[in-house]
Amino acid sequence: MGAAQNHNYRINVQYDGTRYKGWQIQNSTTETIQGKLETLLSRLLQEPVQVIGSGRTDAGVHAIGQVANFHTNSAIDSRHFLREINHYLPEDIAVTALEEVNERFHARFQALNKTYRYRIHTGEVSNVFERKYVYHYQGQQLDAEKMKLAAKELLGEHDFRSFCGNRHMKKSTIRTVTDIQITQKENEILIDYTGDGFLQNMIRIMTGTLIEIGNGTKEVQDMKFILDRKDREAAGYTVPPQGLCLMQVNYED
Amino acid sequence: MGAAQNHNYRINVQYDGTRYKGWQIQNSTTETIQGKLETLLSRLLQEPVQVIGSGRTDAGVHAIGQVANFHTNSAIDSRHFLREINHYLPEDIAVTALEEVNERFHARFQALNKTYRYRIHTGEVSNVFERKYVYHYQGQQLDAEKMKLAAKELLGEHDFRSFCGNRHMKKSTIRTVTDIQITQKENEILIDYTGDGFLQNMIRIMTGTLIEIGNGTKEVQDMKFILDRKDREAAGYTVPPQGLCLMQVNYED
Repeated sequence: MGAAQNHNYRINVQYDGTRYKGWQIQNSTTETIQGKLETLLSRLLQEPVQVIGSGRTDAGVHAIGQVANFHTNSAIDSRHFLREINHYLPEDIAVTALEEVNERFHARFQALNKTYRYRIHTGEVSNVFERKYVYHYQGQQLDAEKMKLAAKELLGEHDFRSFCGNRHMKKSTIRTVTDIQITQKENEILIDYTGDGFLQNMIRIMTGTLIEIGNGTKEVQDMKFILDRKDREAAGYTVPPQGLCLMQVNYED
Repeated sequence: MGAAQNHNYRINVQYDGTRYKGWQIQNSTTETIQGKLETLLSRLLQEPVQVIGSGRTDAGVHAIGQVANFHTNSAIDSRHFLREINHYLPEDIAVTALEEVNERFHARFQALNKTYRYRIHTGEVSNVFERKYVYHYQGQQLDAEKMKLAAKELLGEHDFRSFCGNRHMKKSTIRTVTDIQITQKENEILIDYTGDGFLQNMIRIMTGTLIEIGNGTKEVQDMKFILDRKDREAAGYTVPPQGLCLMQVNYED
């Protein structure tokens, strides 16, 4: 890490996740958003820079309001640096804001809650311009009122093991979902989930389960039993990643 | 053409033009939207099918409301056939409507007027989700009020030779522009052009000229002289194709 890295910067990041293996660096840095950012920031600031995200997003998932922070030795001229970063970033990643923050700010530990949006396109014909950002659902018609009733069962603190994509999860699977808003438009159903944190694939499994309730495969009252079962087999299918987008991460002021 | 082809169908077509060489078939059919449609319709209907578009769109230009028609021997079950076409079309082309029409209907000859939209993104940071559908303009600030005043000069019947990308155009360059609407949003300027027809690159050159007036390179009153000059050199630059979209084609009822 070299010297003190006594400056701490917060960034807001927007990305089209289509061609990435998700946010978090894995074996290779080149195909993740965190990897792209760390490589570029380290080059521009001429020191090794670590980027701390509010949390990972899966392969193919998008973000409008991802938040991250990084420490550096350099005092940065925000406006100029923002232009420079965006000039070198690939066109499917953008840093939309940058500001110096208190040295104790930590994008992951201090996140109060996050809001994700899942978009289900229900039109007969897919929209060619939105095709990478929605799930084009072509099954039986969805009853949004039933989905809203079932979603209420998910609110609050629960053990969400039935909605966890990692069947060998050893850590706690208890999370708190504070809000689920379901909005029906002409050819689309939007589901906005807010919570203190989400397990692997949790939103995509909750969405698949709500779809199965909306199309009549499952009943509204099944949701409570699915939660109680604490078994991935009990819940619905995992909807594809491209309909999911991290909208916002909230912090204490 | 074989037998009588006594059925005439009108289709509405939507496409993301990013990876195509425009609407119209050129040497090879594979990289144009017309080519993709003709190949697929001929295969599905098992007869050679010609698709008549309302007009061509340039390479990289999009369409939400392109209209075309084709003749066939087959009586088509619209709903079923629409599903089938869209199943086989690439994901960046969609047929959004299909209906049988009078045998005299001709998508090009009978088009009364067309509306195109050009989107100029003026935000400092580009929007990663819209990047293929807007022109990210990064020059001097644009004065939309000046652009509106200058646009008024373009309304009506004029010789638009100054705005014609084909400098060796032998046919008439007289066209009628019936409406230009300029809408300013937070990070975007939309320009909607309606007219009976547009010359090659005409909308992109009118837009480049309006931008040069908006940013102060040219004056509002220059627009009249540019029209009068009947010389491509007099007008502004040709903005890139990805900001342009064919919105709507109107026909008599």
